[in-house]
Amino acid sequence: MRCGVWLIGARGSVATSAVVGAAALASGAIEATGCVTEQAPFRPLRLPGFGELVFGGHDVADTPLAIRAERLVRSGVIPHGLTGTDAVARMLAVTDAAVRPGIDAGADPAASQADLADRLIADIEGFRAGNDLADVVVIDVSSTEPPLRPHPAHAALDDLEAALRGGEPILPPSSLYTYAALRAGCPVIGFTPSTGIRVPALTELARQAALPYAGCDGKTGETLVKAALAPMFAGRSLRVRSWSGTNLLGGGDGETLADPAAAASKIESKRLVHEQVLGYPVSGDVHIHNVPDLGEWKTAWDNIGFEGFFGARMTMQFTWQGCDSALAAPLVLDLARLAIAARQRGLAGPLTDLAFFFKDPIGTDEHGLAAQYGALLSFADRLAAR
Amino acid sequence: MRCGVWLIGARGSVATSAVVGAAALASGAIEATGCVTEQAPFRPLRLPGFGELVFGGHDVADTPLAIRAERLVRSGVIPHGLTGTDAVARMLAVTDAAVRPGIDAGADPAASQADLADRLIADIEGFRAGNDLADVVVIDVSSTEPPLRPHPAHAALDDLEAALRGGEPILPPSSLYTYAALRAGCPVIGFTPSTGIRVPALTELARQAALPYAGCDGKTGETLVKAALAPMFAGRSLRVRSWSGTNLLGGGDGETLADPAAAASKIESKRLVHEQVLGYPVSGDVHIHNVPDLGEWKTAWDNIGFEGFFGARMTMQFTWQGCDSALAAPLVLDLARLAIAARQRGLAGPLTDLAFFFKDPIGTDEHGLAAQYGALLSFADRLAAR
Amino acid sequence: MRCGVWLIGARGSVATSAVVGAAALASGAIEATGCVTEQAPFRPLRLPGFGELVFGGHDVADTPLAIRAERLVRSGVIPHGLTGTDAVARMLAVTDAAVRPGIDAGADPAASQADLADRLIADIEGFRAGNDLADVVVIDVSSTEPPLRPHPAHAALDDLEAALRGGEPILPPSSLYTYAALRAGCPVIGFTPSTGIRVPALTELARQAALPYAGCDGKTGETLVKAALAPMFAGRSLRVRSWSGTNLLGGGDGETLADPAAAASKIESKRLVHEQVLGYPVSGDVHIHNVPDLGEWKTAWDNIGFEGFFGARMTMQFTWQGCDSALAAPLVLDLARLAIAARQRGLAGPLTDLAFFFKDPIGTDEHGLAAQYGALLSFADRLAAR
Amino acid sequence: MRCGVWLIGARGSVATSAVVGAAALASGAIEATGCVTEQAPFRPLRLPGFGELVFGGHDVADTPLAIRAERLVRSGVIPHGLTGTDAVARMLAVTDAAVRPGIDAGADPAASQADLADRLIADIEGFRAGNDLADVVVIDVSSTEPPLRPHPAHAALDDLEAALRGGEPILPPSSLYTYAALRAGCPVIGFTPSTGIRVPALTELARQAALPYAGCDGKTGETLVKAALAPMFAGRSLRVRSWSGTNLLGGGDGETLADPAAAASKIESKRLVHEQVLGYPVSGDVHIHNVPDLGEWKTAWDNIGFEGFFGARMTMQFTWQGCDSALAAPLVLDLARLAIAARQRGLAGPLTDLAFFFKDPIGTDEHGLAAQYGALLSFADRLAAR
Repeated sequence: MRCGVWLIGARGSVATSAVVGAAALASGAIEATGCVTEQAPFRPLRLPGFGELVFGGHDVADTPLAIRAERLVRSGVIPHGLTGTDAVARMLAVTDAAVRPGIDAGADPAASQADLADRLIADIEGFRAGNDLADVVVIDVSSTEPPLRPHPAHAALDDLEAALRGGEPILPPSSLYTYAALRAGCPVIGFTPSTGIRVPALTELARQAALPYAGCDGKTGETLVKAALAPMFAGRSLRVRSWSGTNLLGGGDGETLADPAAAASKIESKRLVHEQVLGYPVSGDVHIHNVPDLGEWKTAWDNIGFEGFFGARMTMQFTWQGCDSALAAPLVLDLARLAIAARQRGLAGPLTDLAFFFKDPIGTDEHGLAAQYGALLSFADRLAAR
Repeated sequence: MRCGVWLIGARGSVATSAVVGAAALASGAIEATGCVTEQAPFRPLRLPGFGELVFGGHDVADTPLAIRAERLVRSGVIPHGLTGTDAVARMLAVTDAAVRPGIDAGADPAASQADLADRLIADIEGFRAGNDLADVVVIDVSSTEPPLRPHPAHAALDDLEAALRGGEPILPPSSLYTYAALRAGCPVIGFTPSTGIRVPALTELARQAALPYAGCDGKTGETLVKAALAPMFAGRSLRVRSWSGTNLLGGGDGETLADPAAAASKIESKRLVHEQVLGYPVSGDVHIHNVPDLGEWKTAWDNIGFEGFFGARMTMQFTWQGCDSALAAPLVLDLARLAIAARQRGLAGPLTDLAFFFKDPIGTDEHGLAAQYGALLSFADRLAAR
Repeated sequence: MRCGVWLIGARGSVATSAVVGAAALASGAIEATGCVTEQAPFRPLRLPGFGELVFGGHDVADTPLAIRAERLVRSGVIPHGLTGTDAVARMLAVTDAAVRPGIDAGADPAASQADLADRLIADIEGFRAGNDLADVVVIDVSSTEPPLRPHPAHAALDDLEAALRGGEPILPPSSLYTYAALRAGCPVIGFTPSTGIRVPALTELARQAALPYAGCDGKTGETLVKAALAPMFAGRSLRVRSWSGTNLLGGGDGETLADPAAAASKIESKRLVHEQVLGYPVSGDVHIHNVPDLGEWKTAWDNIGFEGFFGARMTMQFTWQGCDSALAAPLVLDLARLAIAARQRGLAGPLTDLAFFFKDPIGTDEHGLAAQYGALLSFADRLAAR
Repeated sequence: MRCGVWLIGARGSVATSAVVGAAALASGAIEATGCVTEQAPFRPLRLPGFGELVFGGHDVADTPLAIRAERLVRSGVIPHGLTGTDAVARMLAVTDAAVRPGIDAGADPAASQADLADRLIADIEGFRAGNDLADVVVIDVSSTEPPLRPHPAHAALDDLEAALRGGEPILPPSSLYTYAALRAGCPVIGFTPSTGIRVPALTELARQAALPYAGCDGKTGETLVKAALAPMFAGRSLRVRSWSGTNLLGGGDGETLADPAAAASKIESKRLVHEQVLGYPVSGDVHIHNVPDLGEWKTAWDNIGFEGFFGARMTMQFTWQGCDSALAAPLVLDLARLAIAARQRGLAGPLTDLAFFFKDPIGTDEHGLAAQYGALLSFADRLAAR
């Protein structure tokens, strides 16, 4: 049974990697390294196969996916030769044809956000009908937005819908896409730190529509390691005195996050982890620096000052040199499969048991990685039992 | 109710730090940073207070504890001023008087190991009687021995005891101390990688005597971090391709472990962790290098090569700059308290739920840190309920 | 022959360390580790002995030096016991009595900068006369100021002096101190990135007064390493593609530099090094982050991406965990001695051969460390020959 | 004017990279990144062009160079597409045809070393004649040998030649190749730590033959950085207390050096640098560990403990993640060009001014990188002037 994956930011590196990866996995050209849902405990769930996923999405850019894929080959993310295989080339072409223009503030100044939403909904419904899909999940993998500017109409769905019809844009793009997704009956996943569903009126809509959702901000590097290490310090009663994180990002991500407004969202979700786990405030901050030359790669350095018996001061440092898209893409596939499975089994509301995937999990304060993994496994058990 | 802690290697840095620390904690001069058993979940256990612990032990060295403590002050482990307080000075003097000569191969060539064991048993029993102690736990914090040379008499207690009466030494010191401890009715803890209780005849004796025991090799640095990180790679299906560890040690520890025979024990227990958690063999080794200038401090560097989606190669590195004694001493106090509590509640055999403390936990294959911590907490619950 | 060292920021950590260190060196209590001018090639110069240095200075703070010194003991900069020696205690008391109030914008709003300068000059001349000193060198070791706001009166000495008599403050404090120092006939050293002498009217004054000067911004950590490494990449024709630096600072330094305006000065001088040596622009920036818990210690991490044959991408990283005051103080003593020697031999103008000590050396574009060291040694030769 | 480059180990990664690189440079397909002799100061020397170099050599392996080159493409050393260009493919084929069997202890047990040398000499002379080459330089880029076992016949050329005719092998392969090279009138370069020319009888032969030579052990990673950093500590009078180096090597290099006997040569030459520059002994050692998964890549970590003013203890660490062949190959081309130029200008004996390229430079104790670079530049000046 084929399922749809509608990607916001469908022409970006993460989306392109997910699309190429799904085709490569389905054709047996690559292994499922980095895919959580291919582990043994998920087998009883009978999740959609990689070959059953159909991709489409919105994007403001119009670079063909085949060209985006070639760039990822040159950056060393996708191996040479892979994009030339029939399976992958066909998948890129089919997906390319299914990408619709995203919301571009400048392009259509006269339209209300309600008009825009109608167009987005029609795009998704067209994709579903055209491909004869039972379920479509919408996943935001686009660039990070600045934090939400509050508006009274965010509080209730009725007020929001009235306001959307006005001339003023009151939802940021991530939330407007989410609105459209929910109206189109799709579960939604926020893989970025952007606001998305985190507007009361939208969670109200999800509740009405009985749709599951999860987010936010995929945990693929520094924060993943923090989530593994912070419980170690806590469990051993070692007092963390300072935790300073520096993230060097290249590519578009680095550029977006060089804007302090956009970075603010991300830094907040990265910072949560250790203070939540430790339960006390800690000196030091998380910083994001743009280093264009790094391209698809990112390097993080964390310096952790801690105190042991007798107040002895000690230090732990780590560096993480990762390939962002290669870390994120398999998680996007995991989340697509899990969200569809949750929808098919009738789950609704925040899927807090997916916290393992997110820097700032919606609906839960659990930031310890092992506890999150345990929750994910029991989620799989419960789902399999339904 | 006062309890005894009998330390094998009672004049070493870890023992001295534990003794000073217990007195400093009891008098409120320091906080319980690094003590696991002071966390809230352990309160219902009503463990012995730090002021209720009485220390003694065996050592082949005869440097007074006060001098050892001063060296630790100069090395920056123990803060200036602490050893001059009444509580600490008194504790050092009392403990010093309670230390008995350890087994010195050269000192008494005519004695059989049975004779030596009798002397060790008498020492422990004298300590217990002299201090009117209900329980005494024996903890090995002495230098690492080479791996055990097998002997047929290790298989059964009767054979072992017969062989001990012969002229040939057939047990390494750590195991002879363990034999004496069990015969003296004490729970035993192996905080080093030395053989200790891991001889079938000795586990038989522990079973007969219905005594609890745990080990081996306290997990205080590089391996602690490995135990936190390896499950992260496993949970995310990231394939670890190489894991290389370098440990720079100073002090006596570095010197002992510069001997490849002694290092072999330690390296084996350090190596277990990631391969056990990951479930497949990994390129790279653990190395221990002696850097005398480091003194009480140790620095570890681990370089982890891993593979993600598309086979993309990534790297994580960490360094750990720790103060060995300040990391180990509070765990020695934790283990003393837990072993005594286990004994008082009638537990016997391997305390596998103490794996959280050890590099190579006896009786369990669980090497993931969070799982070990979970086991420790439920151990505390179960113990409290008895 | 006694010489005066007048410190701007005389109650700060660097000044306190320099004062304590000079007394400790003179009394033989410590070795001259970190003092460049104690190396063999400087012996023929017959520089002033450490015991011949007399200290005084300006500061806006009034914490007694003895208390500042105690804080440095508690931070682990100055060893326990040293401040209690007669030589050091006496030196701290004598210097304390010689510190005069610094320029405090809020304290005396009515005074013109010319009035303030007159007071500063009188302070320095009083110090010289009171101690019967042939030479006094003025060294700025105070907090970093924001970059200079240009003013037309900066262009020529006459205009400047006219403007100083007006109501408007037109010189930043570092430059007003410099003006006073030059007017008092003293060589000046800018150990911070603040403007100091880098105002055309002030270099005109130095020329008129035939006084030597040097600066700016002592090179004690990350930039020192950069100056050693950048020529390695250049010499080997390895193309540096990105060089990202992160500096974690505690104490007052971290706080001052958490202000982006103040940090701007410092970042600019830190950034110069590698681009000047390499001769082409490089991706990445230098960042300074405040981590109060680090206290007197600083940790820098640099990540250098470079390219070799076949365009192969490689990476070098370094971390530097240094004690700021212990690195800076001996250089302050070196610079005091060298500036006095230069003055005594009649040198005037920028001492470009002291570039070895500075991040942003005045009067030269040489940023390679070995070349700077070579220049310093031949400076010593030339000076000895005069 | 075409010149010959005869490589010992002609089918290894370094040799293959040098051959591919020379063709790629000559055809303009790559830039000269990593080539020292393409810097401006070397232009007046009019060194042989990359297109004028003709390659051949000895090797015990018989894997075709084209296959070795493909492996380097798959390892990410040589870019995709490069080996398929006409220029490179032709160069690989031509060189492949010019490689002769190396000395294989097992292959021809009856032959004396004199017989073997005759065959080697004939190979080189055949290469020279067949390609009509004025000059041929012989460069050893083969695997590292164990340290030399001394033999009385090493002391003088006559004795050596007599002994070579005996049944006993008395020269290690690297020295037998060197003997043959000198007899064939070729300058020799030892790019490995193997003995090579460092036998008195062989330097006597070089003197007789008036041939220049240089070595040993190309400086491409950890030691390069050490040579840049050690003078920094020395110049600043910072006392280095420990310097511990760990080198993780993959590929054949790692395997060879996992043999402690072979590693001994390399470790000795790596260790020299900092102690020679600093002038005093330092705690810690250099270690080489085999991590097969690293392939052509190597990662080094150095931990440097140093002391500043007041005896304050500080730490610097660096990691170097390099691609061995991409670092070594351009230096092989540099050395070939410089040795040929030296020969053509009539220089003989040890070229000590090439120390910049070597870990353990023959004929000089200068280990500071900047001083070595200065010597190289003045060597170029002097050579240009001849």
